[in-house]
Amino acid sequence: MVTKIVDLRSDTVTKPTEAMRAAAASAIVDDDVLGSDPTASLFEAEIAALVGKEAACFVPSGTMANLICVLVHCEVRGSEVILGDKCHINVYENGGISTIGGVHSRTVPNNPDGTMDLDLIEAAIRDPHEELYYPTTRLICLENTHANSGGRCISLEYTDKVGEIAKRHALKLHIDGARIFNASVALGVPVDRLVQAADSVSVCLSKGLGAPVGSVILGSKSFIVKAKRLRKTLGGAMRQVGILCAAARVALNDNVSKLAEDHRKAKILAEGLSRIKGLKVNSASVETNIVFFEILESSNISVEKFCNFLKEHGILVMAVDTCSSIRVVLHHQISESDIHYTLSCIQLLFPQYLVGN
Amino acid sequence: MVTKIVDLRSDTVTKPTEAMRAAAASAIVDDDVLGSDPTASLFEAEIAALVGKEAACFVPSGTMANLICVLVHCEVRGSEVILGDKCHINVYENGGISTIGGVHSRTVPNNPDGTMDLDLIEAAIRDPHEELYYPTTRLICLENTHANSGGRCISLEYTDKVGEIAKRHALKLHIDGARIFNASVALGVPVDRLVQAADSVSVCLSKGLGAPVGSVILGSKSFIVKAKRLRKTLGGAMRQVGILCAAARVALNDNVSKLAEDHRKAKILAEGLSRIKGLKVNSASVETNIVFFEILESSNISVEKFCNFLKEHGILVMAVDTCSSIRVVLHHQISESDIHYTLSCIQLLFPQYLVGN
Amino acid sequence: MVTKIVDLRSDTVTKPTEAMRAAAASAIVDDDVLGSDPTASLFEAEIAALVGKEAACFVPSGTMANLICVLVHCEVRGSEVILGDKCHINVYENGGISTIGGVHSRTVPNNPDGTMDLDLIEAAIRDPHEELYYPTTRLICLENTHANSGGRCISLEYTDKVGEIAKRHALKLHIDGARIFNASVALGVPVDRLVQAADSVSVCLSKGLGAPVGSVILGSKSFIVKAKRLRKTLGGAMRQVGILCAAARVALNDNVSKLAEDHRKAKILAEGLSRIKGLKVNSASVETNIVFFEILESSNISVEKFCNFLKEHGILVMAVDTCSSIRVVLHHQISESDIHYTLSCIQLLFPQYLVGN
Amino acid sequence: MVTKIVDLRSDTVTKPTEAMRAAAASAIVDDDVLGSDPTASLFEAEIAALVGKEAACFVPSGTMANLICVLVHCEVRGSEVILGDKCHINVYENGGISTIGGVHSRTVPNNPDGTMDLDLIEAAIRDPHEELYYPTTRLICLENTHANSGGRCISLEYTDKVGEIAKRHALKLHIDGARIFNASVALGVPVDRLVQAADSVSVCLSKGLGAPVGSVILGSKSFIVKAKRLRKTLGGAMRQVGILCAAARVALNDNVSKLAEDHRKAKILAEGLSRIKGLKVNSASVETNIVFFEILESSNISVEKFCNFLKEHGILVMAVDTCSSIRVVLHHQISESDIHYTLSCIQLLFPQYLVGN
Repeated sequence: MVTKIVDLRSDTVTKPTEAMRAAAASAIVDDDVLGSDPTASLFEAEIAALVGKEAACFVPSGTMANLICVLVHCEVRGSEVILGDKCHINVYENGGISTIGGVHSRTVPNNPDGTMDLDLIEAAIRDPHEELYYPTTRLICLENTHANSGGRCISLEYTDKVGEIAKRHALKLHIDGARIFNASVALGVPVDRLVQAADSVSVCLSKGLGAPVGSVILGSKSFIVKAKRLRKTLGGAMRQVGILCAAARVALNDNVSKLAEDHRKAKILAEGLSRIKGLKVNSASVETNIVFFEILESSNISVEKFCNFLKEHGILVMAVDTCSSIRVVLHHQISESDIHYTLSCIQLLFPQYLVGN
Repeated sequence: MVTKIVDLRSDTVTKPTEAMRAAAASAIVDDDVLGSDPTASLFEAEIAALVGKEAACFVPSGTMANLICVLVHCEVRGSEVILGDKCHINVYENGGISTIGGVHSRTVPNNPDGTMDLDLIEAAIRDPHEELYYPTTRLICLENTHANSGGRCISLEYTDKVGEIAKRHALKLHIDGARIFNASVALGVPVDRLVQAADSVSVCLSKGLGAPVGSVILGSKSFIVKAKRLRKTLGGAMRQVGILCAAARVALNDNVSKLAEDHRKAKILAEGLSRIKGLKVNSASVETNIVFFEILESSNISVEKFCNFLKEHGILVMAVDTCSSIRVVLHHQISESDIHYTLSCIQLLFPQYLVGN
Repeated sequence: MVTKIVDLRSDTVTKPTEAMRAAAASAIVDDDVLGSDPTASLFEAEIAALVGKEAACFVPSGTMANLICVLVHCEVRGSEVILGDKCHINVYENGGISTIGGVHSRTVPNNPDGTMDLDLIEAAIRDPHEELYYPTTRLICLENTHANSGGRCISLEYTDKVGEIAKRHALKLHIDGARIFNASVALGVPVDRLVQAADSVSVCLSKGLGAPVGSVILGSKSFIVKAKRLRKTLGGAMRQVGILCAAARVALNDNVSKLAEDHRKAKILAEGLSRIKGLKVNSASVETNIVFFEILESSNISVEKFCNFLKEHGILVMAVDTCSSIRVVLHHQISESDIHYTLSCIQLLFPQYLVGN
Repeated sequence: MVTKIVDLRSDTVTKPTEAMRAAAASAIVDDDVLGSDPTASLFEAEIAALVGKEAACFVPSGTMANLICVLVHCEVRGSEVILGDKCHINVYENGGISTIGGVHSRTVPNNPDGTMDLDLIEAAIRDPHEELYYPTTRLICLENTHANSGGRCISLEYTDKVGEIAKRHALKLHIDGARIFNASVALGVPVDRLVQAADSVSVCLSKGLGAPVGSVILGSKSFIVKAKRLRKTLGGAMRQVGILCAAARVALNDNVSKLAEDHRKAKILAEGLSRIKGLKVNSASVETNIVFFEILESSNISVEKFCNFLKEHGILVMAVDTCSSIRVVLHHQISESDIHYTLSCIQLLFPQYLVGN
């Protein structure tokens, strides 16, 4: 029987630490809908300063954070957003920007590194002179790190260039920064500089940072006023939310510094996997805390069998949609020995390919 | 200088108790989006059983609870909902069912007791044979207790009759039960019986029950499956949400029994106010924890002056929109002595009307 | 066997005249979507001048005209419109402003004369300082003549007062002028003066004016630019639409002058009906071309039987929803002798009440 | 001064013929909204039989036809449609399916021949087991002929295969058949067979067929009932619409047989253009009535100069968006001598490249 679980499905699975629980338990709170909750206000001010934006708004999830940002920028009926075809908003958020917000998507292919070609972005912008049959382009979205590309970082230089395109065409730039601190740490660029070109940023607090619940939206004061109103419309305004914000403050203070360690552990895992001959992993592309790898067909091991075998050994991983890929995500509650244990278990499945043979 | 605040603006202002904080701090949690959080699942099962529905879904707010319920019942484009013109959904939820959900509202006047005339409800149902230019009626909404009517209770008999109308026309019935436990206690009807006719119910956990955050949706299993998916679309699905559900469990266990006391205190306050001659309050209509009263014009005291004067004495109350009415809401963190203190302060404002003169 | 049909269901049933058919057949046309159709442009310029607005836009129907006007004024997500609970937009247009446009309705009761109390309109405007949980009021709608009130006219004085309210609160005023020419003729007020306070007007060409197809939107140049773009989105932009506009030009030139005659015939009919003792009709309220009357219960004649009996005699009338009322609408293809024939047929149904007995 | 205009911008520019005008002028009509217009009903029955579907619905434009079809198939909130990234619905219809209908788009790259790879279509279908964060795939759209691919035909075999994919996944198939008769003629496949796999088809009457106004939706009886209701919501239901349907009947009877001639003239034009050395045209890809060609950079002639020069000679053509391509569309009002005149004028612009040199 397995007692310890090595949960590698996502960095969203992190459990709140004792410090977070203690902070939640002792938080000074008030009704954040009627006026303001002091802990929420403090947290929003702190993270706004850190990310270099005027104001912030705590929301229940990254999905709501992105939904609000896109909808505020596209508040006028008939708006269109340019975004990558593999980005989280386009693939994993229920199409909410259209089905809830009536925003039309114009996708541009994501390159393997998570970027979109700059000339394709520019070509996707609608000519405002032909507007009779075109929606109005209002927004470009980037995602950093780019999850579906294996957590690869979008560089500062690229981000700034997209910001220039946006500015030149009077568009807004939103960064889905669910894992922007991973990108900041991996690139060695301060987070406020990294998102400087953006008009809005969403940051997830319950992924690598480990807070129990929440994401935060950052932008100008007037943008956040609109965001807070839409948060109320969607039902994301919460009463004594300081309970959650107190935990998020601890997450921000304690865990940003642990991300580099997560990235190091991801590399160890990727290198270990690359030595198992039944698998295919591109170690070089592992830039942060996500590792994608494929099970070679020649191994005759199905994704389902792979996942179930690991599960029996107390290790949880996620198959990527319907293909033969596996996604593993590191976080601060995975130790280096967990990784070696994981590699050992995987090796049991590929005996004919034993390392060193 | 005032140190203690008597916050009578709403029952949403209640602070989490020590027991709630302790429960939050020690909650067993997991990623409720990826699979299930054990504390959330436990809470949802417990409250579903209590309210007499098959399943439940924890959401960040009452606004989201109502929005999801209306949108699930009205999932087909071209739907219309019948609801009271003074009900919370119609007045205080940003028109979200239309502006986010594209549902058309058909309002029926609310009577002073919060009901709508049954024949007006029935007349508001669209004739399906004329459907070429009519939207399709799909839902009737009730609100119990009815906030804008001063927290008056919708009776079991009335609710059942509306349920029969709904059934006869193949419509659904949703009850906005933000304060359904107040109604249940005041009417002496078990909550599951009171909402038996409803296809869905929303219940607020952070009003009289005192939980820091959250509402819950109740309905059939298939309804809750759809509700959880829409919760994800709106961004209301939260990760280690057991932190909040643990506090909500305490609220449910500890505070339902305190509601009768809140109602008793509301009556004391209303009777006290009725003896102050510059005010007009209908004590008989105070059925639960809300008291509305008017400042008589002859008193020459504006609502603004009234509120500010009380604020200087550490008492917070809310003006009702633009008129000369004041709303006061009792909750478990208001003591009987707080009420006497409040009455004393108000009396200072109306010296010419001193009681006993 | 009946050969001639007296069609009193609506003034929408008018057949195009020979002059309209000839005009359609010889119209100079071009692709109105690619650039402009000369006949459409000419018609739009002429009617804009007549109604006293800068520009016009021909659309396939009154429903689209109203839908576009409301949606252009409410182009920002989260908008609310104030309108009468019995007005055409609220009752007979599929709830499209919500179900298609996401606009929230705030209804005010229509008085028997089609107006809404001015203080109720003003009270329905949302306080912008409470905007966190309120939608944003952007528009007030009037309907002139008001169909559900029996075609009664909204006076110039009243219209101007609503315009002042709109202006004071920075709102827009739309007039559903499906039958605005009937109002203008009956009130003796030039149509441009009658709608002077409005930011947009819709006018139906295929009701009393008798054109085969179409309505027109009138407003400022910038408003019409937006209207034309939304017309394209909805699919209302048509290619060689001059075919229809040529007929509409004839309608406008030839038939406005016939409306007074329609009103006179409506009065004759109403007076005749009022002498049939099984019916109840308020002749005084017949101000234009619509007559509503009730069949008294004591007559033991159902609405269905009434309509079928007339149908057998070649007369078509429409029951009003589910109640015991009948609606009759006069138009230029109903002669005075048709009215006398109709009255004679109705009298056959009520022999016990013979006039003069 | 030019008197005769050779309008090659689109086949939408065709003027109604004398026969169409006469038919419009003498059409037997009635109120198609209240009941039915006999000419409209006749036309709808005839074209339904011709296209092999149960029922039909006349609408003002192809944009409305496609909008209604997508929205009826996607009537449940949270729907997604799979369609080509260069198809008309995605590029030229204002994003209406999202901005009006709240449907999320999932685009698949269009190949140069207008198809989408079958395996990419299948890969784009959402896994219904992951539905918590996925919208629900409900519809696949094809366009035949495919305008942005130069009017190339989608083969019967390919269409049937997409139909099988749709069926296998319980999805619907819509064909934007704006120019389906061109495809039918060019492929030599009867139109009913060509769209047999489709659940709905839109057909434009005012392109190559030359009717002044209108498109038609075809599908099952129950589908058309829903389509007609949505047509009313959008404002596309018209009163004495027989005026337009009479002209459309003539178009259908007289002009289908002329399409082969249009295709022959397109080939003549394409071959002529291919001999002008400053231009690049792929004659082989000219399958129907559309010709795309590029102006070589080496010619030093801008698209703007090209279009203006032709305009001075009475020839109208359209630039394709912002690139250096020109689109020319043939139709029954362009004669063979118009083509030779056009080629002569173009040659004047490229003297250094004189044919035969």
